[in-house]
Amino acid sequence: MSYRALHRLGAAEIAAAVRGGAVSCEAVARAFLDRIAEREPAVLAFEHLDPAQVLAQARQLDKLGRDGPLLGVPVAVKDIIDTRDMPTAYGSPIYAGHRPVRDATCVALSRRAGAIVMGKAVTAEFAVVHPGKTRHPVDPSRTPGGSSSGSAAAVAADMVPLALGTQTTGSTIKPASYCGVVGYRPTFGTIRCSGVMESAGSCDTAGLYARTLEDISLYRDVLVGTEPVPIAGDTPAPRIGFCRTPQWDRVDPACQRLFEDAAARLARAGAHVTEAELPPEFDAAEEAHRLITSREFVLNFAWEIEHRWSDLSPALREGKIRVGLDCSHERYRAACRQADICRNRLDAVFERYDLLLAPATTGEAPVGTNTGDSSLCSSWTLMHVPTLSVPVFTGPAGLPVGVQLIGARGEDRKLFAAARWVYRKLAFPAGKRRPLQADTDPRPLNGGW
Amino acid sequence: MSYRALHRLGAAEIAAAVRGGAVSCEAVARAFLDRIAEREPAVLAFEHLDPAQVLAQARQLDKLGRDGPLLGVPVAVKDIIDTRDMPTAYGSPIYAGHRPVRDATCVALSRRAGAIVMGKAVTAEFAVVHPGKTRHPVDPSRTPGGSSSGSAAAVAADMVPLALGTQTTGSTIKPASYCGVVGYRPTFGTIRCSGVMESAGSCDTAGLYARTLEDISLYRDVLVGTEPVPIAGDTPAPRIGFCRTPQWDRVDPACQRLFEDAAARLARAGAHVTEAELPPEFDAAEEAHRLITSREFVLNFAWEIEHRWSDLSPALREGKIRVGLDCSHERYRAACRQADICRNRLDAVFERYDLLLAPATTGEAPVGTNTGDSSLCSSWTLMHVPTLSVPVFTGPAGLPVGVQLIGARGEDRKLFAAARWVYRKLAFPAGKRRPLQADTDPRPLNGGW
Repeated sequence: MSYRALHRLGAAEIAAAVRGGAVSCEAVARAFLDRIAEREPAVLAFEHLDPAQVLAQARQLDKLGRDGPLLGVPVAVKDIIDTRDMPTAYGSPIYAGHRPVRDATCVALSRRAGAIVMGKAVTAEFAVVHPGKTRHPVDPSRTPGGSSSGSAAAVAADMVPLALGTQTTGSTIKPASYCGVVGYRPTFGTIRCSGVMESAGSCDTAGLYARTLEDISLYRDVLVGTEPVPIAGDTPAPRIGFCRTPQWDRVDPACQRLFEDAAARLARAGAHVTEAELPPEFDAAEEAHRLITSREFVLNFAWEIEHRWSDLSPALREGKIRVGLDCSHERYRAACRQADICRNRLDAVFERYDLLLAPATTGEAPVGTNTGDSSLCSSWTLMHVPTLSVPVFTGPAGLPVGVQLIGARGEDRKLFAAARWVYRKLAFPAGKRRPLQADTDPRPLNGGW
Repeated sequence: MSYRALHRLGAAEIAAAVRGGAVSCEAVARAFLDRIAEREPAVLAFEHLDPAQVLAQARQLDKLGRDGPLLGVPVAVKDIIDTRDMPTAYGSPIYAGHRPVRDATCVALSRRAGAIVMGKAVTAEFAVVHPGKTRHPVDPSRTPGGSSSGSAAAVAADMVPLALGTQTTGSTIKPASYCGVVGYRPTFGTIRCSGVMESAGSCDTAGLYARTLEDISLYRDVLVGTEPVPIAGDTPAPRIGFCRTPQWDRVDPACQRLFEDAAARLARAGAHVTEAELPPEFDAAEEAHRLITSREFVLNFAWEIEHRWSDLSPALREGKIRVGLDCSHERYRAACRQADICRNRLDAVFERYDLLLAPATTGEAPVGTNTGDSSLCSSWTLMHVPTLSVPVFTGPAGLPVGVQLIGARGEDRKLFAAARWVYRKLAFPAGKRRPLQADTDPRPLNGGW
């Protein structure tokens, strides 16, 4: 197998090639390091990258004859997640050079499955809004989104087939939509966050990036600690709730039409599509999310706020911290109760739908370094439901836009199966392959479908 | 004020004395260091204690003229909780000498309120069952309980007026019952656990120790980040549900009689006391707790299990880890759903009661080093409700036994008020003060009531 082709493979394909003896972990690592050498100067996805360390991991895997569902698969890890052999600075100068004593759970489970940790991916400061250096892989004048900026961009630029991010507001889904990759936020609590710097524990989850739903499903199984099983293949046409959400007016009109057109196409393809009415309590969910995450943040960062104020970005101080300091414990608890009510009401909505379909972002990645608007994600995050951003649209500027697919709490596998049905109908209408990524190297997202 | 008397004061009294200028932080620190020098050789509550470091903190507070609701109050911190200036070993040889990069949220908030961190208190290995060196403060042949062994014992022996513990099963309430102090597990999520080593995040909470309910309330307010307010003083006689729980048969018969007698006494004192029927789903809560906490534990400690197996205690390997490894993701998710159902059903129970009254432990602290039976606590922990252990009984061996008082989720303040009513009636029947602690220096818990 040619080294030059390896970086085009997905995680499952790489692991199969390595486990079948077609290629060594070292060869895989070298292929991705070559790709990184080519793309990283423009994309700037990595906060820490040491090729010698990567090769040492790969050689060790080859030497030990290890096995695992991710054997030899390169993974980028958001720099909000602890790694025992690489610095972890949480996107803040306060922690520059910090070396944690242990791997976060998700890193330990990745390594146990045979993955190679390629490096630490750029994060916004403490996974909030102040951006790192990463540029959009297609158009360097634009943001890749955030806060999991480096993780999304690294996957979009084929520098890794898998990456770990996190989401407290829209930090996984938004960059996935902007960069044109699959982003997944699991049901709250199913992928443990031990060793991930807590931003707001009531909403924090891990987030995964890949180029295909199959790779997302594989990595998810590894991280929940279960034997990987393929996405169910015999899914009937799903019951889809087309959900404009209370934030619909913020969506770029051209993208509104894309979403509406998608709903119509899915209905023509045989899905039962109706407008999903959200319970009225849902109107307050965005504000409840804002209060809960901001108050938890200022408690979690009490020390930094008191002792390192000048090392916090103005965007953080004047945004999340100001909101958090202004929110009383009583308002916080009221918002928590509101969230509980909404979660229970949403369970009832999912008795009528297999998935909800909504915008993932207000449109394409904006020009500049601001990481963009997360308001299409925050309420779903608060609901603890699993969500995906799947790259199916090309926006007016020729850049990717994702569709957000939302499942019921705990029904992540069902969401994957329904999402694959949706993806196939939207990305390849009437069997025609349509390039979805306006990358430097355009191609269909997954040639195998 | 005599230095010798200072260690007898509670947290609120100390802070008032320091803020009023009657005593310096340094004088308080010296008084408690003297007390520690006297009691620590027998109790062994501290994993780390550096008098010079304690005095430096106290002098710094005096020098800066700081203020705060805990000004000058010594606090012991369970060694599962990160401290940036003291080693944190999580009760495991794997992390001996580890120095975290930041304070846990609860430590940072304690310091911001003016507290002096006296040292790190002994914890069972990773806050589970393998015991540390701490002995029961009254009878050194017995366990102080665990996993927050050092925190409870340090408060019981007057070595600190306040201590931080944690609870995932019964790690705060059980040692409080055994040692004869007030223990408090807050509503899940209200005291943030950032910087506390995650054992099982679905159940982990901070836990507090003090000698009085007033000090618990004060410390709780500091840690949820709100202005301290006194416990409501005008509480009417509460509606009390006497709750034998599905674990009643495990309670020592002599203690069963103490609990039944307490219920009768409270009824005579004017409370509306009835037998509380728990929903039938509750019978499965103990097992659901066992599965959830064990599976989350083995995910969180994936690295240690793979790479440091021989450094884990046999008790941990053959107990929680074995259960966790044997529990599939599907069983885990089913247990999580079961827990959700129980929580909602319990909310309905609390429409009929201001608090539930149940045993905190099966009886007095057992002889030996085994940290005792947590089964009277685990279901309440899973329910996310606030609980207290209040020292009101003396068991057959003359040792303390606590009563567990349980409130509705989020109603911690209401629980404090009702608990104070209960405490006064049980500890001081007909106005008579009855010494409750069979300490070396017996006295009523709080002379001020």
